[in-house]
This record gives sequence, structure tokens and C-alpha cells, in this order.
Amino acid sequence: MKIESLGRHILAEFYNCNQEIINDHNLIERYLIDAAKKANATVVESCFHMFNPWGVSGVVVIQESHLTIHTWPELGYASVDLYTCGDEVNPWIAFEYLKEKLQAEKTETIEVPRGMVDKIKRFTKEEYTDVKYKVGI
Amino acid sequence: MKIESLGRHILAEFYNCNQEIINDHNLIERYLIDAAKKANATVVESCFHMFNPWGVSGVVVIQESHLTIHTWPELGYASVDLYTCGDEVNPWIAFEYLKEKLQAEKTETIEVPRGMVDKIKRFTKEEYTDVKYKVGI
Repeated sequence: MKIESLGRHILAEFYNCNQEIINDHNLIERYLIDAAKKANATVVESCFHMFNPWGVSGVVVIQESHLTIHTWPELGYASVDLYTCGDEVNPWIAFEYLKEKLQAEKTETIEVPRGMVDKIKRFTKEEYTDVKYKVGI
Repeated sequence: MKIESLGRHILAEFYNCNQEIINDHNLIERYLIDAAKKANATVVESCFHMFNPWGVSGVVVIQESHLTIHTWPELGYASVDLYTCGDEVNPWIAFEYLKEKLQAEKTETIEVPRGMVDKIKRFTKEEYTDVKYKVGI
């Protein structure tokens, strides 16, 4: 069977990462942008912040949704979201790339479909015939 | 029982929203920033984009993680993420506020703990005694 949805969202927990890498705000921004590009996403904008005394928070807005990261260098932990729309982008490529670059020894993931087409049809009063992700910015 | 985690993440599906509202990029940005403030979060930065021919994508980076939204006005659908850390912020207040402002007739949510403390301890080689969300920017 196939379930149609507008997007897919991977919630990833990265444990025992390289603590220096996940405290380097420039490096993390570069890795997230590279991850988006490798997944075949189109980067629209990125916003990254260094926290005091530790940690990086950042978002890459892509044409096909977003990638985010929040890191706790003192715990070796990073929380990563990879949310993409459409068939042209593969968030798992971004996941594998980041896992390698952050040197995460252990990862866990949940994948959640977002915008399930049957539910959109079920829960609205409109009659939709063409429910899909449309490329364009 | 209590499960300790660094953060909590609500994945929300908003169906049958007001189509004009979810196509108004200035309004959506204002609502997301207001939602963050009402939830007692500290806004660090926001990035919003209008898509062609329809739709808004946006992120509010907060000191305590992030809020994001992606809208499909032509389907009345919005995909919302509310990810907060620490005990001082309540993402459900942001959820209720946005549900009202977007005039969503039907919503569905999943709440996922992020950075579960027992797992961070289990999956690392370090001995951590003090694993919690630390305020500071």
C-alpha cells in the first residue's frame, strides 16, 4: 500500500556526538546547509545562534520545508529535525550526512508523515481532486 | 511516574483553516511570534517566506528551541511544530492560540519528548550528574 502525504518529517536524536563539533556554530551551519543540498533541497535562508555558555540552535528554511538543530555539547547530544516535501528531496540523505559529520555514535529516529492527503480530504468541506506538494517559491 | 527530557515537541496538523489568513505572510509571522511570547518563550529571530503561487513557510527561533509553520492555503491546511525546552515555557498555550487565530476547524497532534535524560545517560560514555535544560543565550 502507499500512503500519500504532502511531506515527511524525521525527528532524530543524535547521542554521543563530537562535543567540539556540536559547539562550533559556523561548522554546524555549514553542515546543515550542505545536508539540505545533498538531499536535493533548495536552501531559502538559514538562521543560526550560539548560546551562552554552550550550544548551537539553527534552522535552514528550504523551499521544501525545513531542517533544524539544537545541540547540548556538554552532553554530546543534538536534536535534529528533517522535514521535507515532495518526491524530489530525500531527508534520509541529510540524516546520514549529519550523523557522519557530527560523529554521532548512536542515533534514534521517528518518521512522521505530515499533511496526509486522506485526512485533508476527510476533514475539510471542499472537494479536492489535486492534493499534492507544488514546487515554487 | 515522571520522564525527564530536555524538551517537548508538538507536531500539529491544522485542517480546514481560514484560507485567506494562512496565505497572509505578515499575519502568520505576527501570530507565530505572539504564540511564542504567550507560551513564555524568548524570541531570538524569525524568518518567513511567501511561496508562489501560494503558501507561507516560517520559523521563529526561540531561546528554548523553535516554532515553525508551513501552509497550503489552497487546501486549508497548515503544518505546525512547537518545540520548547525547560519548564518555564508551555507549547500548548502556543497551540491553542494558533488554533484560534488560524480558525482551524480540526486539529491533530503528536507530542514527542526530545532529549530524554535516561537515554542520554545510557548512550554516552560520560557520567552525567546534571542533565537538564539550561537557560542562557
